[in-house]
Amino acid sequence: MTASENGGKPPGPSNPAAVVRPSDLDEYLTRIKQGDRPVLSRAITLVESTLDADRRLARELIDACLPLSGRSLRLGVSGLPGAGKSTLLDKLGVMLVEMGHRVAVLTIDPSSGRTGGSILGDKTRMADLSREENAFIRPSPAGGVLGGVAGGTRASIILCEAAGYEVIIVETVGVGQSESVVANLVDFVLLLLVTGAGDELQGIKRGVIEYAHAVAITKADGANAAAAAEMLALYNELLRHMQPTDDGWRPRVLATSAFENKGIKELWSVITEFRDAMKQSGAWGRRRKDQYAQWMHAAIDDAIRSVLLRGTGVRERIEELEQEVRAGKTSPLTAAWKIVRSITA
Amino acid sequence: MTASENGGKPPGPSNPAAVVRPSDLDEYLTRIKQGDRPVLSRAITLVESTLDADRRLARELIDACLPLSGRSLRLGVSGLPGAGKSTLLDKLGVMLVEMGHRVAVLTIDPSSGRTGGSILGDKTRMADLSREENAFIRPSPAGGVLGGVAGGTRASIILCEAAGYEVIIVETVGVGQSESVVANLVDFVLLLLVTGAGDELQGIKRGVIEYAHAVAITKADGANAAAAAEMLALYNELLRHMQPTDDGWRPRVLATSAFENKGIKELWSVITEFRDAMKQSGAWGRRRKDQYAQWMHAAIDDAIRSVLLRGTGVRERIEELEQEVRAGKTSPLTAAWKIVRSITA
Repeated sequence: MTASENGGKPPGPSNPAAVVRPSDLDEYLTRIKQGDRPVLSRAITLVESTLDADRRLARELIDACLPLSGRSLRLGVSGLPGAGKSTLLDKLGVMLVEMGHRVAVLTIDPSSGRTGGSILGDKTRMADLSREENAFIRPSPAGGVLGGVAGGTRASIILCEAAGYEVIIVETVGVGQSESVVANLVDFVLLLLVTGAGDELQGIKRGVIEYAHAVAITKADGANAAAAAEMLALYNELLRHMQPTDDGWRPRVLATSAFENKGIKELWSVITEFRDAMKQSGAWGRRRKDQYAQWMHAAIDDAIRSVLLRGTGVRERIEELEQEVRAGKTSPLTAAWKIVRSITA
Repeated sequence: MTASENGGKPPGPSNPAAVVRPSDLDEYLTRIKQGDRPVLSRAITLVESTLDADRRLARELIDACLPLSGRSLRLGVSGLPGAGKSTLLDKLGVMLVEMGHRVAVLTIDPSSGRTGGSILGDKTRMADLSREENAFIRPSPAGGVLGGVAGGTRASIILCEAAGYEVIIVETVGVGQSESVVANLVDFVLLLLVTGAGDELQGIKRGVIEYAHAVAITKADGANAAAAAEMLALYNELLRHMQPTDDGWRPRVLATSAFENKGIKELWSVITEFRDAMKQSGAWGRRRKDQYAQWMHAAIDDAIRSVLLRGTGVRERIEELEQEVRAGKTSPLTAAWKIVRSITA
């Protein structure tokens, strides 16, 4: 622990509030259950550690938190940069806090191996929400060892739920791959689109509509209002031609304005309507069970790959052989055979 | 070799035509280069064998054929059952043969671990094409050991090209996952859609439009003509809102009728226009290099997984743990850790 993390005060038992890095499982667990935000944040950092001892503690902590988890609504929100994610989430988050909910916002960047944005950056982006006692905003670690590109986020959701957060918002950047990643983590996928992005059908392309439970046309105000209304009509027309999902849900489209505080309540109504319908049909619990099974398989694959590729020079050899394959000097099958022979020999 | 495979004649050196199962690499290679269809078919069967000796021969054969491959146009065709794949491919295939091309049709079922349809079934389905001397119709093996669900098809394409086929059509059933699988194997992805399937936007959903280079609205004749024209207009309107792909290609929509022989020539024009444009820009070769690199990675992953899961009871243990995870009795991470510990111990 450094002095700056500690607010400048000397660490030690005489100053319990300064102990932000618990030494064992019980201490983590007690403080997380108390809703201690610095310790929750530490726990999320622990999850991305690659030290063997930390990994074990992280796994034990997640296991201990699992029975305390699962009672929140998990909301995935995606959209391209400029789609108005932060402003909308700021408004939505504050509204939820005012309704009496505890709200956590986790950011995830599925396209990179690292987390997206800094904590400071996120707090600046959601200025009002970050001042709320009952809100928690943090990037989630991109912890491959915990199961796929989203393993760190899955773990962070569990930790936040154990800390008593009732709405977990997983925010992700991009349109396309993001939704398929986030769809495995959350109950409800919300896609934010904005007019004038050069491709009005960005939400329809790349299979996004397959994952999105609702589409919000953002910044539907001022000079943008007419274009937003047109885009809303286009999407409504498209949805008319679509069959509902297996769960009987038909994606909804709404126009929202964070500036004019428009459509935010309606958005939350759609989300809770979905939750109630899915809980009644049983689809809610089934979806979560499937997600946990996926998490297990992703964690197995990651662990196996990391064990095997740990060998000296294996990654370099794969890289070399890929170049030979691209150059037509080695066949893909022979290249694969060489790699497998070298690591299983 | 059974008597029926041999046309009832006794096998032996006195009847060279009956030797449909070559004993070594050179014999396979010579006969494939001669365009011997029964031997080509045998080679494709060899590719799906799981015997160690066969696997090695298969790999050597594919390696030997690779330098002879790559000169064909590889066309992927997908669509739901009832979309009119066989009738359209029958017409297109015969037209191409009449233009002087040698045409191979490989079927693939990416959704199952096995091949889709029997040879007899396929021949019945493409009655006219199957009678052509310069056509070859066969299901491709779903050979996981050769690299992903499509490894057997990748290998079959190489073998067909070595045998002198100039247009390789990879036919797949389904809308959704099929296109993303087939897109890694071919140069051009054609999606067949039909009106009245209950969901006019089936081609837009599930990310298909991201992979399809052209969409054909099939059975655009008789009582169906008006609905097909409407669907054509809808897709043209949608495409107007879309940006072209990275390669600068804008997906095309056509109406076709195999019955009235309508739109087939136009379809081929679109395909060759794409080929010429991509060859000129260099995207053609880049795409194939990427595909070969993907093939290598898929083959590495498959081989590693099959080596590790070969252990006694590993698959059963994973299945058991998945049930425990679903029941909430074990956490996903602990389940994964147990599996990995047991196979790497």
